[in-house]
Amino acid sequence: MRTREQTFEIVATDAQTKARAGILRTDHGIVETPVFMPVATQGAIKALDHRIAASLGYTMLLANTYHLYLRPGTDVLQSLGGLHRMMRWDGAILTDSGGFQVYSLDTLRRVFDDGVEFRSHIDGSRHLFTPASVIATQRAIGSDIMMAFDECIGYPAERRNAEAAMFRSIRWERQCLRVHEQLPLIYEHRQQLFAIIQGGIHRDLRKRCIEELCAEPFDGFAIGGLAVGEPTEAMYEVTDFSTDLLPHDKPRYLMGVGTPQNILRSIALGVDMFDCVMPTRNARNGTLFTTRGRINIRNQRFKHSDEPIEPAWEELGVEPHSLGYLRHLFVSGEILGLTLATWQNLAFYRWLVRTARQKILDGTFRQWSHQFLEQYYPDEG
Amino acid sequence: MRTREQTFEIVATDAQTKARAGILRTDHGIVETPVFMPVATQGAIKALDHRIAASLGYTMLLANTYHLYLRPGTDVLQSLGGLHRMMRWDGAILTDSGGFQVYSLDTLRRVFDDGVEFRSHIDGSRHLFTPASVIATQRAIGSDIMMAFDECIGYPAERRNAEAAMFRSIRWERQCLRVHEQLPLIYEHRQQLFAIIQGGIHRDLRKRCIEELCAEPFDGFAIGGLAVGEPTEAMYEVTDFSTDLLPHDKPRYLMGVGTPQNILRSIALGVDMFDCVMPTRNARNGTLFTTRGRINIRNQRFKHSDEPIEPAWEELGVEPHSLGYLRHLFVSGEILGLTLATWQNLAFYRWLVRTARQKILDGTFRQWSHQFLEQYYPDEG
Repeated sequence: MRTREQTFEIVATDAQTKARAGILRTDHGIVETPVFMPVATQGAIKALDHRIAASLGYTMLLANTYHLYLRPGTDVLQSLGGLHRMMRWDGAILTDSGGFQVYSLDTLRRVFDDGVEFRSHIDGSRHLFTPASVIATQRAIGSDIMMAFDECIGYPAERRNAEAAMFRSIRWERQCLRVHEQLPLIYEHRQQLFAIIQGGIHRDLRKRCIEELCAEPFDGFAIGGLAVGEPTEAMYEVTDFSTDLLPHDKPRYLMGVGTPQNILRSIALGVDMFDCVMPTRNARNGTLFTTRGRINIRNQRFKHSDEPIEPAWEELGVEPHSLGYLRHLFVSGEILGLTLATWQNLAFYRWLVRTARQKILDGTFRQWSHQFLEQYYPDEG
Repeated sequence: MRTREQTFEIVATDAQTKARAGILRTDHGIVETPVFMPVATQGAIKALDHRIAASLGYTMLLANTYHLYLRPGTDVLQSLGGLHRMMRWDGAILTDSGGFQVYSLDTLRRVFDDGVEFRSHIDGSRHLFTPASVIATQRAIGSDIMMAFDECIGYPAERRNAEAAMFRSIRWERQCLRVHEQLPLIYEHRQQLFAIIQGGIHRDLRKRCIEELCAEPFDGFAIGGLAVGEPTEAMYEVTDFSTDLLPHDKPRYLMGVGTPQNILRSIALGVDMFDCVMPTRNARNGTLFTTRGRINIRNQRFKHSDEPIEPAWEELGVEPHSLGYLRHLFVSGEILGLTLATWQNLAFYRWLVRTARQKILDGTFRQWSHQFLEQYYPDEG
């Protein structure tokens, strides 16, 4: 198998934790790690212009293969020049493979040895995802980082089911790699392929999956099948165990995670990449992440407050809108409220991960992270 | 009655039409006329950050006394430092008086000699608007231009009803002027007061209303009670007749108007100011105003189009997003679609009125306006 160009470089490792600061190279720019990727499932961050995300310093977005395959469809994606050109987004894009979305579908879904048959959540139409079709779809999207097609299972799961899904994932992901090596590119930029480690909360299954997949020339490795309902401590345990086994020189991506605490603790465990709907979805429910803590903007106590939503607004790159104004926008059903709340939450997440990286470089990550979480979650301090 | 400072100045008059180019001075900056004011009913432009409106060159927004009185309420408005500070908007603000909204309420509404009792559209609670209360509310809002409280009637209306509403409007508006002269300012900037001319489509009633109100020291005059369902030609006739009688040196405001054609034709009749929900509301329905004409972005024919929504995107100050992308956002229910469509429509309206002004200054308004409308409405050309 041909050797791939090394796209990831570690620039600093923390002495007191497993945290690392790195650089991930793509044809759409350099991504500094640890990195948090805003979720742009259908080719748009919900309620926020991605140009604002860029102004906050975000350099990579996450989009979704399942959703883009159904709408607008691969023919339209190609007519519009791929997702970068379609969105007029010059930064990097990572696409999830659709394995998780297919697993999440409540509607009919059948797992074969060769793929998954499912019904569209939009119109009920039948579709088949296979390792080859998922790579072909990601070719049409043109993401900088493609995810291999896996079988994700929920929590709790019987061991034999977790094991079967893990072996099926290994087979499918190897197929993805072969297709990736053979199927020509559609656009003019490189695409990387990351594997997804499965195995539920079972150490031996995770270990086996890592051994099998890390022998293959994937560009990076995701820890999948977590943040699906298991206790938080189980998530940390699997992550800790996995990063001990994963190759040091490849990026590690903890999919679908998480809260500010989850992120800082997982950075300490050696994770480089994150994505989560939490900052954007919570924003639309009126839950704001600020450097002062988490608040619900609909709370009556903010009604008369002229204080800025974010005390460190200048540092975070948000406008100094008042708590009272944002509350008014939410209570009045104004779309601008969703936009400003999403802006705030993504600014906060960007600040959090950017600061974590700086602290790793400074050698003060552990102390800072501990202090921050104590102050941010006083009840758990 | 004390003399007011002249806040309006005409800088050019068109030789072939009644069009004028002027300057309206407020303590929140100079407003060049003709001007179109984006509607920010509840203190927000629907689906668009008002900073983008500012970047398009908008210098004055319209907000609504009725809505802001109910929510967030005058106490909150004052706690938050008035509407300018609440919105973090440095430009000018004009507030409609609530007369039109109260007239539009389907729910119980009773007109007394002294005011109007109505039920809130939010919770059904009972409220009373009087000339004095409406000025007091606009004090709490702190708008640069307040509108006097009138009684608006629909179309068609019996002559005796139109006449009664006209005389009641005159009485109420004079009361507004007295209250305005006596009630102290809350914030540190000036507030102007405009009268609203009523009288339905009856020339003698309009004439009487103009004679009575123009004898008073209002800062400007609005033509009210139009765009309420009457034939477009009737609207132009009343406007034409009214601008012949209105003082030359005061700004004229045609409330709630309108389409690009309505605006250009009314500018030719000597109107200086406009507001309308059309660009913003239509945007949210997927109807776009572009220099190429009006389109519905949901149309199947845009599915594969990589062409920019607006060919003159650079001149108009919008991003070069493609028709295909915007269609995808609408079909997928993404909020960003509403935002980009609103951005486009307000950019178009700003371009239209800004260009009209320049053509008045150049002395080519009539020719340009004629050509533009022929091309923009080919079926009516």
